[in-house]
Amino acid sequence: MEQKEKIKGRTEIATLGEFGLIDHLMADVTPQNKSTLIGVGDDAAAVAAGQKEAVVWSTDQLLEGIDFDLTYFPLRHLGYKAVTVGVSDILAMNARPEQLMLSIGVSSKISVEALDDLYAGVKFACRELEVDFVGGDTKPSVTGLTLHVTVLGRSERKKIVRRNGAKLNDLICITGNLGAAYMGLHLLEREKRVLQGIDNPEPQFAGYEYLLEKYLKPRARKDIIDALDEEGIIPTAMIDLSDGLSSDLMQLCKASKCGARIYLERIPIAKQTSAMAEELHADPVVAALQGGEDHELLFTVPLAMQEKIMGLGLVDVIGHITADSTGCFLVTPDGSDIRLKAQGFVESEEC
Amino acid sequence: MEQKEKIKGRTEIATLGEFGLIDHLMADVTPQNKSTLIGVGDDAAAVAAGQKEAVVWSTDQLLEGIDFDLTYFPLRHLGYKAVTVGVSDILAMNARPEQLMLSIGVSSKISVEALDDLYAGVKFACRELEVDFVGGDTKPSVTGLTLHVTVLGRSERKKIVRRNGAKLNDLICITGNLGAAYMGLHLLEREKRVLQGIDNPEPQFAGYEYLLEKYLKPRARKDIIDALDEEGIIPTAMIDLSDGLSSDLMQLCKASKCGARIYLERIPIAKQTSAMAEELHADPVVAALQGGEDHELLFTVPLAMQEKIMGLGLVDVIGHITADSTGCFLVTPDGSDIRLKAQGFVESEEC
Repeated sequence: MEQKEKIKGRTEIATLGEFGLIDHLMADVTPQNKSTLIGVGDDAAAVAAGQKEAVVWSTDQLLEGIDFDLTYFPLRHLGYKAVTVGVSDILAMNARPEQLMLSIGVSSKISVEALDDLYAGVKFACRELEVDFVGGDTKPSVTGLTLHVTVLGRSERKKIVRRNGAKLNDLICITGNLGAAYMGLHLLEREKRVLQGIDNPEPQFAGYEYLLEKYLKPRARKDIIDALDEEGIIPTAMIDLSDGLSSDLMQLCKASKCGARIYLERIPIAKQTSAMAEELHADPVVAALQGGEDHELLFTVPLAMQEKIMGLGLVDVIGHITADSTGCFLVTPDGSDIRLKAQGFVESEEC
Repeated sequence: MEQKEKIKGRTEIATLGEFGLIDHLMADVTPQNKSTLIGVGDDAAAVAAGQKEAVVWSTDQLLEGIDFDLTYFPLRHLGYKAVTVGVSDILAMNARPEQLMLSIGVSSKISVEALDDLYAGVKFACRELEVDFVGGDTKPSVTGLTLHVTVLGRSERKKIVRRNGAKLNDLICITGNLGAAYMGLHLLEREKRVLQGIDNPEPQFAGYEYLLEKYLKPRARKDIIDALDEEGIIPTAMIDLSDGLSSDLMQLCKASKCGARIYLERIPIAKQTSAMAEELHADPVVAALQGGEDHELLFTVPLAMQEKIMGLGLVDVIGHITADSTGCFLVTPDGSDIRLKAQGFVESEEC
């Protein structure tokens, strides 16, 4: 292998990016078993369960130093968040989460009491979401704390919503508001920097509690799946907002082979998000587009459902689906079109 | 949380052990959903799939520095082994593996070409086992390479085999031979030590290729599940041999509320394992009892099936199940009974 690398040269993973890497690694993989209903390329996979149902299945990892910093992330919240991260992928398929496994790699700095806290958060979230916690794997780690959450959900096959069903003129809907988790993270990082080396640090969070909660303890939007079901609404496409609106919308459009236009002034941003952005001399729209970890849902419905979807009172319509060749654009209040890129927007095109 | 730890004191995880830790963390967890057929405490969980079938589900992690050392573990083999580790848990439930997800945390030292090798091993093993590779999660890691494999399998509900069904006088059967993977690891570790700092190292593996294969590229025993099925044999209890015969047999006996007697001279040990043990001044039986990572199957069948099970030509009968109160014993050729402990045997009791 070493020799092969020297001959072929070395390609850094960064040159492909996360999505490019998955495309590259999974390019030659095709499911063969008839029980495999959905393979690579969605928020979750799905396998047959009887004639009419499907078991929907997702897996996520949370790694110390990448996804969380234990200097300020309470383990109880981390456990709660791990459940949200896993469950959100199941919800994004319009399925109901039912079982969860958590595997952890535990470094020696973690005590049994600390793990009790982590598990208390997992159990609390599972109870809230009516998910059975059915085990997992525990082993020592020399590489920091690692969490791995896998979730099984269930849905009638005909109600499963994938990323690839958005159609021309469909409305683009999002739940909650965006950018708050990203601003919560920035706030925590700022206080960590400012208070480094101080004996009894007193971080300044007053007025920004909502941002901390959105980052440390985001709630999975099971209420949305319930509300859609009650109203008999099946979205045409759906995705969990985990990588930022821009990146996730582009994933949905790529899968659905379509374009999109979203309107800047319609993107819901919480007051605390705007206030924090101002304090940090940052743009709250950038936080919404690029920030990620919102764990809200982005979905599309036919134009004819506008009234019904607005009637839920839980959703903002931020734009609509366009033809494939047009690309994905953010429309600013002055009428400019800005082309979205996976890591936010960079290229400006006047109308 | 910090404060709570100081007040309550700190309990080190090592004081509970891996199994004690899981028992502690999962003590108050009870499944509530009717679709949950098997929760914590087996090789895999199981959920309903239609009226008669179940989806069986396992998760395993392989962490750099704990489960593998990249100085000598070829990534292609690591990918292959990750599949074996995951699939073995499904086979140990007497189910057929059908789908697999792999999530990886990738440190910056890993190139795209190296990942290609890792994935080539995963894909090869999946093709061999007729398992669909349906995706996973890829993200950067600052803490070394982490692999997380989850597998779904399928079985008729009535054919699922758990750990808890062993009955008095049942025969204890194992597949393949034991201790070879452990000796393979020791050989690799020895060559690493000996050759440290040498420019063009030429490790001495001649005559021990089988041990390397058993450690680096163990095969999942799907052939056994097929053979049992063809003969209409459903074991009363089964477990994947991953932690060593002693520990795994005790797990099975604990779940089945029974004891066991196994006979030292019946434990199958390969010639290379014995030769390597002699070279290292070690006891091959200790390797078999404590070594782990064999990924063979340990199962029990009623005494009446002795002829049928021996007729398979794939299995060794190494002992039988006894009453709960008697404990688990290894019987030596001279008639001594040695009480098994989770980490091998320590206490000697004469008959």
